[in-house]
This record gives sequence, C-alpha cells and structure tokens, in this order.
Amino acid sequence: MRRFVVIGRKASASPDFSLVDLAGTSGRLDVLLRCLRASMLVSHGLRRDVSVYLVLLGGVGAPRTLRIRGDEVRFLRPDERSLAVLAKKALSEPVDGHGFCAVRPGVAVANDGLGAVLEDLGPGTPYLVEEGSGDIRSAPLDLAAPVFFVGDHGGFEAAFLAQLAALQPMGVSVGPVSVHAEDAIALVSNELDRREHSQRWPTG
Amino acid sequence: MRRFVVIGRKASASPDFSLVDLAGTSGRLDVLLRCLRASMLVSHGLRRDVSVYLVLLGGVGAPRTLRIRGDEVRFLRPDERSLAVLAKKALSEPVDGHGFCAVRPGVAVANDGLGAVLEDLGPGTPYLVEEGSGDIRSAPLDLAAPVFFVGDHGGFEAAFLAQLAALQPMGVSVGPVSVHAEDAIALVSNELDRREHSQRWPTG
Repeated sequence: MRRFVVIGRKASASPDFSLVDLAGTSGRLDVLLRCLRASMLVSHGLRRDVSVYLVLLGGVGAPRTLRIRGDEVRFLRPDERSLAVLAKKALSEPVDGHGFCAVRPGVAVANDGLGAVLEDLGPGTPYLVEEGSGDIRSAPLDLAAPVFFVGDHGGFEAAFLAQLAALQPMGVSVGPVSVHAEDAIALVSNELDRREHSQRWPTG
Repeated sequence: MRRFVVIGRKASASPDFSLVDLAGTSGRLDVLLRCLRASMLVSHGLRRDVSVYLVLLGGVGAPRTLRIRGDEVRFLRPDERSLAVLAKKALSEPVDGHGFCAVRPGVAVANDGLGAVLEDLGPGTPYLVEEGSGDIRSAPLDLAAPVFFVGDHGGFEAAFLAQLAALQPMGVSVGPVSVHAEDAIALVSNELDRREHSQRWPTG
C-alpha cells in the first residue's frame, strides 16, 4: 500500500468554500484536490493500492484531515469540480470521536491534523518530498509500504517538520525544477511503478 | 523551445460549454486544460520556454486549435476553472484567415487542427508519447526544439497518426502504467529538465 500525505497549510477544513471560486475561497484546497487526482487516478481507472491523506490546516475547525482509500472509494472523477464536491460533502458530515470516521465508502474525516495521520498510518517507511534532498531515482525505496509527505504550494512549516522529525523520514527530490505538488506525486508514482516493473523498466 | 501538442478528439472547439459542468459539457476539454497546466506551470512561475497547442476536434466549428506561448502569456493560473475561462474567452473571439490569430497576449486561435499546428511549428524534432514505445529515459532527446504529441484520455485515432506519419515521429513511453495525459507531460518535462541539468541529475 502506497500512502501520500499532503499538507495544506491554509486549505479549508470547513465546507464553506465556493465551488465557483474554489482557488480563491478554499485556502488553495484546489492544490490538494489535484494531488488526490495525481495520487490515485490513472487512465480509465483507479490505483487500488493507494491511500491519500489531505491535511487541512486552514479555516474554521482546523485542523482536519480527509482520508481517501483507493481500495474502497467509488466514483472518483478527475476533474477539480467533482473532487471539490466530494470534499465539500465529506467536510459537511458531522464527525466526532477520535481518529478517522467514515463518511462514505472509502472517504473518512478526522478532526485532527498530522497527529491523526501518524496514528492511522501503521507500519511503513516515511519519505519527505522536498527540494534539495537526494534524487529519488537513486534512493532506496520501500515498495511494500512507503509513505510520502508532500507540501502544498508553500512547502513545509517548521512546526510540521518538528512533528515529523521523530519518524526520521528520508528526504527525496524529484528533479532540478521546483514543480507543482501534483506533478511531484506523478513523478514519485512513476518511480515506484518502474521499480515494481524493473525488468522491463530500468531505473536509477 | 519545448512544444506540446495535445489532441482532444472530442474537445469542444466552440465556447458553448458550461463552466459549472466543464467535464460533462466540453468533450473533456478539462483533460486538455490540465495538460496546459502541467506543460507550462511550475511552483510560483511559468515555463517561458514552452508552447502548448490544444487541438480541439469536437463540437461546432471543429477543428480549431488554441495556442499558448509561455514567453508571451500573462496571468495563467493553475486551477481548472481559470483555465476554462481563458479557453472560453479565447474561443469566443472572432478569428478569420489562415493560421493562428492572436486573441490576447500569448494566446492565439486557428480555425484548423493539426494542419495549422504543423505549419506553425517550424523546425523541431517530433516525438509521439504512446504506450508500448521505447522508454523515454533511454531515448535520445533533442533539447533545443522538441515537439511532443500527446493524446487525450482516448489515445490517438488512425487518421491523426496517418497525418503525422510524414514527420516520422519517434515514439516514447513514460512508464509501465497507463497514466493521465497531464501526468505523462509532467514525466516528459522532468526528463527534459534532468537532461538540461545532467551533471547534478543523472538520467537513463
């Protein structure tokens, strides 16, 4: 199981954003929704072995986290508006208690941020996708249970990095140009795909 | 100058699509607009050395083609709705004559499809991004003037391939999994970026 954890420093934890002006009213939740698409959707299908956590640190009710599991979710469409409708509905559901609460098949919400994610992850090998780290093409990668932490358009904040430090994640970088988070996820996924098919697709 | 030519087999050549239901009313123009983002936008900026052609083969007035030049365009935003507004406005402008007609800085429209693109391209090395071709990581790539032809979610039609055959494009494949066109563009761009910075970012 591959996991992607995307940190939205200002992304709306409440459903009170406009579908007509998503980018302007949601603390750039649009960036995270595009990351969801890149993590989970491929041509004519869905990666069943991927889970995505969208950590929403902005707006009323923050922090909250949306979790989407590829092995359970249905009707996930690639366009931004469809994904925004999904997020709006999920964030509108009443959720209480500790940890993730399922709001529809494959979609769950927690009233917490990175803490809830770390509790939920279980065993795995953590990687921090960040510029200046070692090249992912030459990095050792755990194909069984990798967890990739990805920043939004603003990168990571010090408090987040401090919270993550106990895990001692390996930093990996995807290339010489600073690309959008969703493109970084596409590049990470491709490297993992190649390693899984390494006889036909040499890596490194 | 890098060029990406994205073929939208059914993408709307007219501005008569709904911004509220772009994916459902535009012949999947949303796919092409996401390709535009992936081709041209990076973190906090724009790739000035990229031009994109969106070939619109669906709906009233088809074929038409939108051309966006990175060295001239302004205010290009990454979210799907903003890009859809841009396309709607551009396709609403009256355009006549042969070839591309500028409708705003960096944005031009031609009342033709691949023919107009081939006339406009000038010198360059053509590549066809398609599954089953040789791995892009081991392909020779022209860094000065590459042109990548990319299909939408439905791939290429025989008539298109016949029209392109005279160019003898080299087929390149991005990996073992059939990914969305925009992710394929992110992977192509990354390979080009690495070749351009090959001392620090080994390739192949």
